[in-house]
Amino acid sequence: MTHAILLISCPDAKGINATVTDFVFRNNGNIVHADQHLDDQRNIFFMRVEWSLDGFKLDKIEIGKDFKRLAEKFNMTWELYFSDERLKAAIFVSKPLHCLYDLLSRQMTAQLQCDFPIIISNHNDAKDLAKKFNIKYYHIPKDPGNKSKQEKEELSVLKKEGIDFVILARYHQIFSKTFIGNYANRIINIHHSFLPAFVGKAPYAQAYEKGVKLIGATSHYVTEDLDQGPIIEQGTARVSHRDSLENLKDKGQDLEKVVLYRAVRLHIERKILCYRNKTVVFS
Amino acid sequence: MTHAILLISCPDAKGINATVTDFVFRNNGNIVHADQHLDDQRNIFFMRVEWSLDGFKLDKIEIGKDFKRLAEKFNMTWELYFSDERLKAAIFVSKPLHCLYDLLSRQMTAQLQCDFPIIISNHNDAKDLAKKFNIKYYHIPKDPGNKSKQEKEELSVLKKEGIDFVILARYHQIFSKTFIGNYANRIINIHHSFLPAFVGKAPYAQAYEKGVKLIGATSHYVTEDLDQGPIIEQGTARVSHRDSLENLKDKGQDLEKVVLYRAVRLHIERKILCYRNKTVVFS
Amino acid sequence: MTHAILLISCPDAKGINATVTDFVFRNNGNIVHADQHLDDQRNIFFMRVEWSLDGFKLDKIEIGKDFKRLAEKFNMTWELYFSDERLKAAIFVSKPLHCLYDLLSRQMTAQLQCDFPIIISNHNDAKDLAKKFNIKYYHIPKDPGNKSKQEKEELSVLKKEGIDFVILARYHQIFSKTFIGNYANRIINIHHSFLPAFVGKAPYAQAYEKGVKLIGATSHYVTEDLDQGPIIEQGTARVSHRDSLENLKDKGQDLEKVVLYRAVRLHIERKILCYRNKTVVFS
Amino acid sequence: MTHAILLISCPDAKGINATVTDFVFRNNGNIVHADQHLDDQRNIFFMRVEWSLDGFKLDKIEIGKDFKRLAEKFNMTWELYFSDERLKAAIFVSKPLHCLYDLLSRQMTAQLQCDFPIIISNHNDAKDLAKKFNIKYYHIPKDPGNKSKQEKEELSVLKKEGIDFVILARYHQIFSKTFIGNYANRIINIHHSFLPAFVGKAPYAQAYEKGVKLIGATSHYVTEDLDQGPIIEQGTARVSHRDSLENLKDKGQDLEKVVLYRAVRLHIERKILCYRNKTVVFS
Repeated sequence: MTHAILLISCPDAKGINATVTDFVFRNNGNIVHADQHLDDQRNIFFMRVEWSLDGFKLDKIEIGKDFKRLAEKFNMTWELYFSDERLKAAIFVSKPLHCLYDLLSRQMTAQLQCDFPIIISNHNDAKDLAKKFNIKYYHIPKDPGNKSKQEKEELSVLKKEGIDFVILARYHQIFSKTFIGNYANRIINIHHSFLPAFVGKAPYAQAYEKGVKLIGATSHYVTEDLDQGPIIEQGTARVSHRDSLENLKDKGQDLEKVVLYRAVRLHIERKILCYRNKTVVFS
Repeated sequence: MTHAILLISCPDAKGINATVTDFVFRNNGNIVHADQHLDDQRNIFFMRVEWSLDGFKLDKIEIGKDFKRLAEKFNMTWELYFSDERLKAAIFVSKPLHCLYDLLSRQMTAQLQCDFPIIISNHNDAKDLAKKFNIKYYHIPKDPGNKSKQEKEELSVLKKEGIDFVILARYHQIFSKTFIGNYANRIINIHHSFLPAFVGKAPYAQAYEKGVKLIGATSHYVTEDLDQGPIIEQGTARVSHRDSLENLKDKGQDLEKVVLYRAVRLHIERKILCYRNKTVVFS
Repeated sequence: MTHAILLISCPDAKGINATVTDFVFRNNGNIVHADQHLDDQRNIFFMRVEWSLDGFKLDKIEIGKDFKRLAEKFNMTWELYFSDERLKAAIFVSKPLHCLYDLLSRQMTAQLQCDFPIIISNHNDAKDLAKKFNIKYYHIPKDPGNKSKQEKEELSVLKKEGIDFVILARYHQIFSKTFIGNYANRIINIHHSFLPAFVGKAPYAQAYEKGVKLIGATSHYVTEDLDQGPIIEQGTARVSHRDSLENLKDKGQDLEKVVLYRAVRLHIERKILCYRNKTVVFS
Repeated sequence: MTHAILLISCPDAKGINATVTDFVFRNNGNIVHADQHLDDQRNIFFMRVEWSLDGFKLDKIEIGKDFKRLAEKFNMTWELYFSDERLKAAIFVSKPLHCLYDLLSRQMTAQLQCDFPIIISNHNDAKDLAKKFNIKYYHIPKDPGNKSKQEKEELSVLKKEGIDFVILARYHQIFSKTFIGNYANRIINIHHSFLPAFVGKAPYAQAYEKGVKLIGATSHYVTEDLDQGPIIEQGTARVSHRDSLENLKDKGQDLEKVVLYRAVRLHIERKILCYRNKTVVFS
């Protein structure tokens, strides 16, 4: 049974919740999930409503049209989604393959309800794996001189394949402003540290040098500022002096996999709202 | 600023959410928190709504009267609370004092917004501590022969002091059906295991013997079935073969304190609904 | 560089540690790891020593012969391993495949340093996956009438393939005493609950019904008592009333995978000693 | 029964472990705990040995004298402690009192085996609490102009009272190089963030602004570099967009208390070795 999902943000006012839930009720919908949040420092109201379309009076196109009138009244920013839209994601990966293995496994066991039609890499390490899972593999190597040209090729592949969002599953190249602009709030990265600690290269080596007692992983939407985009999910795990740098990397893999998976799933299930470089996650 | 809090459960139906939020909106209330939950196996709807009474058209008594009509329409079970009611809790304790210290400290630093006018114990270990914090101390020792008589005294003290709910902060006596009946869903116990594992006496010794790699603590409402009441909160912590039985107890103390504190706070903030020997916790 | 690993247990006495470390030193070994543990209730001493064989005066066979004399002096139970022995594990699996995917992925990315030459299943669900990874697949279906016969076939396969230990990666059949006797402390199971809570069938359904606030997973060596063997590793994760039974299963998958992986790795690295139905894990 | 504790670090070499354990054995000691660690990047060996003095052939003074000879052979840095030395700690605190309450409670319930003869504060908020627990209270207010003079008074108090180490239980003043030099690796601070993220003032406000999904706390030895000393212990806890800044602070309190407690206890039990601005923690 198809569900409709509304994501709303607007200046706080009395009656928003009542108006939205009444809209669903009037049209004979049954609300399955309703979450709201008030940022009381900024006075911004956020809402996520999900209802069953079984017996709903409006068809998909009419819902948007009708809701537009309410939305204008409250000066809402809003998005409307339907649970029967299956998203297509492109996975970018460099040499470490654990996140890629994890995403593919979860897709195969139906934990992740999306399609992975293509893998793009600046190396060849994942080629065999892509073949095992019957996924198209694009080897697009990059060096400082050809980045702009290669990004154009990548964008052209993404367009051609009708890609909805991008997953950077340990992809170690920085994208240009142009590339990111094409997929604003639709590129999910996994960074192998507890951000904002240890930005940039070799975060495990930084953590080892610092002597931290916990390591972390952070998934976030990619913005122009390196490793500074809105955080979606984070995790930490205990380490000790006994853990060599190799061990940190090894323990970190489990964090990276779970944290990236959760972020991707939240994105697919339309549970994330971005504002002021932060996220509201209705999980 | 005073808030009103409504806790609702009823058979699921279309329009409950819309009706309740409209009730608040119509009377000029601003909803601060709204949570709902649907048990889709049993088709039961749960809701917690909290709104500011600043500018609200109805006074406290009218709210209940007016809402009653809506409630009947949907066959609701409901409770209405106000944030300016400060609850009084009686703490029962036996010999270990760490949970008692913790509750009193949190009350003193204003983490716990309630009063602790009395401590009741079957021992004298907490007497000095009660004195330090200017709390009345009732020493009511128990043996198999006098339990019924002593419980009568306890009940009489609770009534006299106007106690709203009871906290068993490591109190090692079992209450009668009669006693519990007087405070249904208002007696919070901390059990020093991850229930339902290790029910009853000496749970740490049981855990040690079993060789578990995690220990736990569970806070729950007390019912007639020993350690089987609705679970409010649980926590676990890692242990290893290196941990002696003494160490398990020591590590467990931190779990017990935090898990009990959270349960008490959730109770005070009216965030718990009980049904079918389980809880819905709108945290 | 090859390491030697000694696992020792014996009645406690003065000088065990000194004697063992001196044995290594005398023969020009450099100790890389040395862990000891004293069960002071039972007065049993445990030790794990790992040293580099670079420049060691004794060859592999002589080490055991020489050490035997010391061992007898202290009445030791001991095992000697070498880090260049690569173990072969058979994976048994029924219908859910997430643990299997996880083990194979970790083996491919070299997190697990062992071989998986065969998969045995009572179903056909994992057949394609086995083929993808070029692993021999044995479909050995079971019903109450043929269990004994089928176990004989399984044992014959294990022998033929030179299998060192067995991983039950969500295999939903109970083994006979005979089968288990062939692989004492060498069959690792993952049970999808926080044991000893929720033994047996459908542990997630039991947890859901009970209303726990944490779910768990437990890996243990298999003994004749169902789900009662020595616990190797456990994990827990938070759940709430919002989690349907399906969600519990989904969240539990990540626990199961990590907990099983850790147990398998500890086994491979010779870090586990069993006694009195418990484990000493030198991690 | 008194135990002796040896903390050792030196360049790695063959036979250190054997030599140390033989020293204990030769003199008729029974080792209770023995831990070693090798930093294989720097080739530094660390060891902690704890043995019972019951029947030991050397008295306390002789132990040090005798061991000195072995130590010189391996160029060891070493410290010798005895478990019957009860340490005296001074607690410094500013306005938030939760860590102070926690330390005092743990001392009263015998979780912390040390004495707290004095509390020093730049405010008067903790005065009543000190009185409740019969602890001397020194009110030593600070402003930019009098810091040097006030530190002299503090040092004089610490000397007079025979203070062994200092606990900064949310003390919001920065110490001079001189003050720190008097208590090198003996001043334990709790910083209310996951260091190295959010150094300096108002770490919760920084975390809130950044939108992190986990908050942290870090205990470390104080050095001249603000919040950069060797990390002893860290902890993290989940937060979400629902947590206001006030909630972050509230949830953080439980982290701060536990993380500080663990660090103090590790210090008391002589389980910490410092090197290269990091710690080896033999827990």
